[in-house]
Amino acid sequence: MSEIKNIGVLTSGGDAPGMNAAIRAVVRSGLYYNLKVTGIMRGYEGMVNGEFINMDRKSVANIIQRGGTILKTFRSEAFRTTEGRAKAYEQLKKNEIDAVVVIGGEGSFTGAHAFIQEYNVPIVGIPGTIDNDLIGTDYTIGYDTAINNVIDAVDKIRDTAESHDRLFIVEVMGRDSGLIALRSGIGAGAEAILIPESRTNIESLFKRLEEGRKDKASKIIIVAEGDNMGGFEITSLIKERFPNYDTRLSILGHIQRGGRPTCADRVLASRVGVAAVEALLNGRKGEMIGSVNGNIHYTPFHNAIKHISEVNPYLLKIVDILSL
Amino acid sequence: MSEIKNIGVLTSGGDAPGMNAAIRAVVRSGLYYNLKVTGIMRGYEGMVNGEFINMDRKSVANIIQRGGTILKTFRSEAFRTTEGRAKAYEQLKKNEIDAVVVIGGEGSFTGAHAFIQEYNVPIVGIPGTIDNDLIGTDYTIGYDTAINNVIDAVDKIRDTAESHDRLFIVEVMGRDSGLIALRSGIGAGAEAILIPESRTNIESLFKRLEEGRKDKASKIIIVAEGDNMGGFEITSLIKERFPNYDTRLSILGHIQRGGRPTCADRVLASRVGVAAVEALLNGRKGEMIGSVNGNIHYTPFHNAIKHISEVNPYLLKIVDILSL
Amino acid sequence: MSEIKNIGVLTSGGDAPGMNAAIRAVVRSGLYYNLKVTGIMRGYEGMVNGEFINMDRKSVANIIQRGGTILKTFRSEAFRTTEGRAKAYEQLKKNEIDAVVVIGGEGSFTGAHAFIQEYNVPIVGIPGTIDNDLIGTDYTIGYDTAINNVIDAVDKIRDTAESHDRLFIVEVMGRDSGLIALRSGIGAGAEAILIPESRTNIESLFKRLEEGRKDKASKIIIVAEGDNMGGFEITSLIKERFPNYDTRLSILGHIQRGGRPTCADRVLASRVGVAAVEALLNGRKGEMIGSVNGNIHYTPFHNAIKHISEVNPYLLKIVDILSL
Amino acid sequence: MSEIKNIGVLTSGGDAPGMNAAIRAVVRSGLYYNLKVTGIMRGYEGMVNGEFINMDRKSVANIIQRGGTILKTFRSEAFRTTEGRAKAYEQLKKNEIDAVVVIGGEGSFTGAHAFIQEYNVPIVGIPGTIDNDLIGTDYTIGYDTAINNVIDAVDKIRDTAESHDRLFIVEVMGRDSGLIALRSGIGAGAEAILIPESRTNIESLFKRLEEGRKDKASKIIIVAEGDNMGGFEITSLIKERFPNYDTRLSILGHIQRGGRPTCADRVLASRVGVAAVEALLNGRKGEMIGSVNGNIHYTPFHNAIKHISEVNPYLLKIVDILSL
Repeated sequence: MSEIKNIGVLTSGGDAPGMNAAIRAVVRSGLYYNLKVTGIMRGYEGMVNGEFINMDRKSVANIIQRGGTILKTFRSEAFRTTEGRAKAYEQLKKNEIDAVVVIGGEGSFTGAHAFIQEYNVPIVGIPGTIDNDLIGTDYTIGYDTAINNVIDAVDKIRDTAESHDRLFIVEVMGRDSGLIALRSGIGAGAEAILIPESRTNIESLFKRLEEGRKDKASKIIIVAEGDNMGGFEITSLIKERFPNYDTRLSILGHIQRGGRPTCADRVLASRVGVAAVEALLNGRKGEMIGSVNGNIHYTPFHNAIKHISEVNPYLLKIVDILSL
Repeated sequence: MSEIKNIGVLTSGGDAPGMNAAIRAVVRSGLYYNLKVTGIMRGYEGMVNGEFINMDRKSVANIIQRGGTILKTFRSEAFRTTEGRAKAYEQLKKNEIDAVVVIGGEGSFTGAHAFIQEYNVPIVGIPGTIDNDLIGTDYTIGYDTAINNVIDAVDKIRDTAESHDRLFIVEVMGRDSGLIALRSGIGAGAEAILIPESRTNIESLFKRLEEGRKDKASKIIIVAEGDNMGGFEITSLIKERFPNYDTRLSILGHIQRGGRPTCADRVLASRVGVAAVEALLNGRKGEMIGSVNGNIHYTPFHNAIKHISEVNPYLLKIVDILSL
Repeated sequence: MSEIKNIGVLTSGGDAPGMNAAIRAVVRSGLYYNLKVTGIMRGYEGMVNGEFINMDRKSVANIIQRGGTILKTFRSEAFRTTEGRAKAYEQLKKNEIDAVVVIGGEGSFTGAHAFIQEYNVPIVGIPGTIDNDLIGTDYTIGYDTAINNVIDAVDKIRDTAESHDRLFIVEVMGRDSGLIALRSGIGAGAEAILIPESRTNIESLFKRLEEGRKDKASKIIIVAEGDNMGGFEITSLIKERFPNYDTRLSILGHIQRGGRPTCADRVLASRVGVAAVEALLNGRKGEMIGSVNGNIHYTPFHNAIKHISEVNPYLLKIVDILSL
Repeated sequence: MSEIKNIGVLTSGGDAPGMNAAIRAVVRSGLYYNLKVTGIMRGYEGMVNGEFINMDRKSVANIIQRGGTILKTFRSEAFRTTEGRAKAYEQLKKNEIDAVVVIGGEGSFTGAHAFIQEYNVPIVGIPGTIDNDLIGTDYTIGYDTAINNVIDAVDKIRDTAESHDRLFIVEVMGRDSGLIALRSGIGAGAEAILIPESRTNIESLFKRLEEGRKDKASKIIIVAEGDNMGGFEITSLIKERFPNYDTRLSILGHIQRGGRPTCADRVLASRVGVAAVEALLNGRKGEMIGSVNGNIHYTPFHNAIKHISEVNPYLLKIVDILSL
């Protein structure tokens, strides 16, 4: 579609490692296809307020390895209003931005969807969120780094757990989804993993701890923050039931979303970043550009929703077997 | 198949990070299914010489995060001879080892294949090699860690390259395959990637360097060791042609295969490790247990060969676009 | 003193990265000087209960790089009683352990001091604690690793802080001492550092935040857990005063004490480990073996106490200058 | 000295991790003392050519954690000539730069010394080099990071060495000095360390390898690049003498000088950076600002020379004891 001459790019929602690699890919492929590329600061907020910067080759030099997002991100209240979106549309028109690549998660795509309905601006999305909870892509940008951040932390915690024969409850991110907990828990060799997708049966956990405790080894339990019991509650129940265990709680928090992105996240971001620009040039819009079974996959925004309760039961069985 | 009561497990060929996670998975799932598990030291060499150790739960505690292989590995000459394999068979019989899980690469599976032909021992394989060059699995155990080791190193090299406006040639592993070079090169933001699968055209590389050099930025070129020109040759040709560039060669070498395995490698190893034991119990043999599109996949050993020259052309195009 | 033929070694108190390097140094230098070396499990508790293991060269192979302590540690109630210490002495005599190297902190040395008074057993100490709070050594084993663990975490948190223009309160270890907070805070480029050694003036902190906030940059405040206001209190006061700031709390917790020890901790542990064995052979006892200005330094146990309130005012001034 | 209103800052010689932290400290303390601060690009070359940039608070935001130097570095031929230095002086005068902080090593200070002799410009130096080879400071900025980079690499190499029972020769940086080799070798648990300060006796190395080899464990030998035999020569001599050993060479190269600086390097850089500006304001010049026994120490440039052959014999003895 030859009318696209200037594409905007923004990051929205929670930051995720690899977002910078995606920005770089969008900018460089835009330039490769002789487009002008405009960075939109602070997500939709910057679109409403006209915080635009011209992006050249150098704007994205030496950022592929950095966590966070150089374009910053923000949860924009303004863009949720009709007036805000009208203002945003005016800003795009005034600045001759013909199309936009949105890097973010479900909420970001919902916003884009509403905007397209109203103003028919070509927008495509790139899945940037550590939660890996979107239909239409095997992995989201940031997830691989997040789970590696978790296992780095748990490997450290295990050192101290082993030295003291302690039981550690480690709470990881994942408000609606246990995907971070599940995969990082297997990777960290956790003895039990508690996730929102399945109700935590505290009695069966107690039983398990009692059995496993016979040889006094240290134990690690991974809990997703969205589990029906949180890390705090589980810790206090265990302390009550097993007062002689040396039980500790560790809430990993924000270290999970930072740091240099892994190779997988950089490659995924590079691939979908290029594909997003090509998609716009091919007339696509209103779709998230993901990767399924190694191939680029297009999912309409209204389908790129969170997929709760789709946990692979085989992975849960593996946890049981390996935590023996 | 109820006759399997004791399974052996060995690692063979070059060591790969994640092999220990695979050993742990085989041991613990063996115990879970009430089998005896025997560790075979030093690959086939230990099978020939009867270097067997009993594995219990604790033998594999606290190893999921360690590089290398606690069972050690060795390139056995003895096992390539008819006499050696006869001796190996005697050792298995004498020690009542009914089945074997071999963790290794193509060469290891070729050995297993020959052994099965002769003695009909149930053997299954797990893909453990940093090269990711096997048909029948999307990833091999160790590959994800290796490419992350490469980008860690290149991120460091880029610091010094940027500070001096230098051109760095970085040689990475991959004798027959450019897969490590290609993916780590994209992840590291390399300006050019040279791989065995495509003949290196030195003149087009020169042209590219000349163009890119206009703004004097630093540059990183990733070369697979199996490229038709090696790192040394390319470096000396560039030095000859561009004597005023500050050009350096860095051969990453063995740091690529060591270190704590990534989460992806640990999860893959855990999954195929459990699946390998289950495969033996289900009567399978002579197959490599891989993962394709997220599902366990069985490939007969004679098909689990190296897949040379199958590089995704889209990835090569991405390199061109992003190195702008 | 030729009568020492068998030395015991134990780790006590909180675990610290580098303890394994110290154990290795004690074992290998003991063997080098033709002594028998006995590992005492779980600190003083194992001494009371006779949990002894013979240490040879291989017992300490491949542990220099591991966090935690292979001899485990424990806070022994028994050893605080006269009966417990009597039992411990019997165990040493029965097992012909002539002298002991204690790796730990102030509490561990107090215990050793009492024991020497009663039974005149030659004991020397090695400073192993992440807190760096002992008189008689410039650094304790584990401190350098702990502060590097903190800056690794804060570097990650900064990624997300920058992306969202957030204010982060990061609580680090240090119940009585702000040394971890102070040095890691300078290393992490923190905008303010709150430590137990100086009363936190919340109004001056508010003023500072207001001034700094003019350019809307993200901010990191490091708080020692022993500060008169904790991380929770400071966070809630800031939220109350500046409701429009995006303020978050992160409590780093146990990840600070784990992980591979840094080079400095390994070298320090190696040096004082060898020196501890040599000290025993030279007839010394009741002393902590530290390092002051690069030289081995001997401090009687009753002087190797915590040095509260000795913070270098120049470092505090540097924080002010650099957080500009 | 109230006449200093504008200070320049440059980095010179090989880049070292922590240089950015030093630049940040110089800039922020300059601003704190109400000075103008000018960044001089590419070391003395930029001084000759007038490559000056104004530095404000934001110029140095978010750089404390980055390797390399944002001001870049260069080995300037021009500044070695009388004409070049005359031109540099003109540039300083024209741009009203009253004083300069030079971050670099011996060569950089020699250049500064000559320049002061000729033009009496107030210049002070900050020791920024990974080699730690300067009289007048206990540590140079970058050294601690470099030795940690080495042990990270050797920890990885040990994984593969252990798995194959291999002997690894690891060549590390240090053209004139074995300080990197010595300290990182102790930290990495090397079995032998070969340094320029002592002639390598190949026969005694052979003897040692023979003895140690009895139990077939893997071995690591660290060689400084400046050793009278290099890594290549030692490797080929060992291969000749012990053809049945599996002997490999790894040259670590440039990965040693990159990467995020350690906490110690950031704190050292921050301290001497502030002290350098204060020194200029106090009328000092022609001195390197180092740290000795924890205190700021001033050394005239003509004394801040490399201290070859001053290796602590106790450290060498420790290597012998611990490599048992």
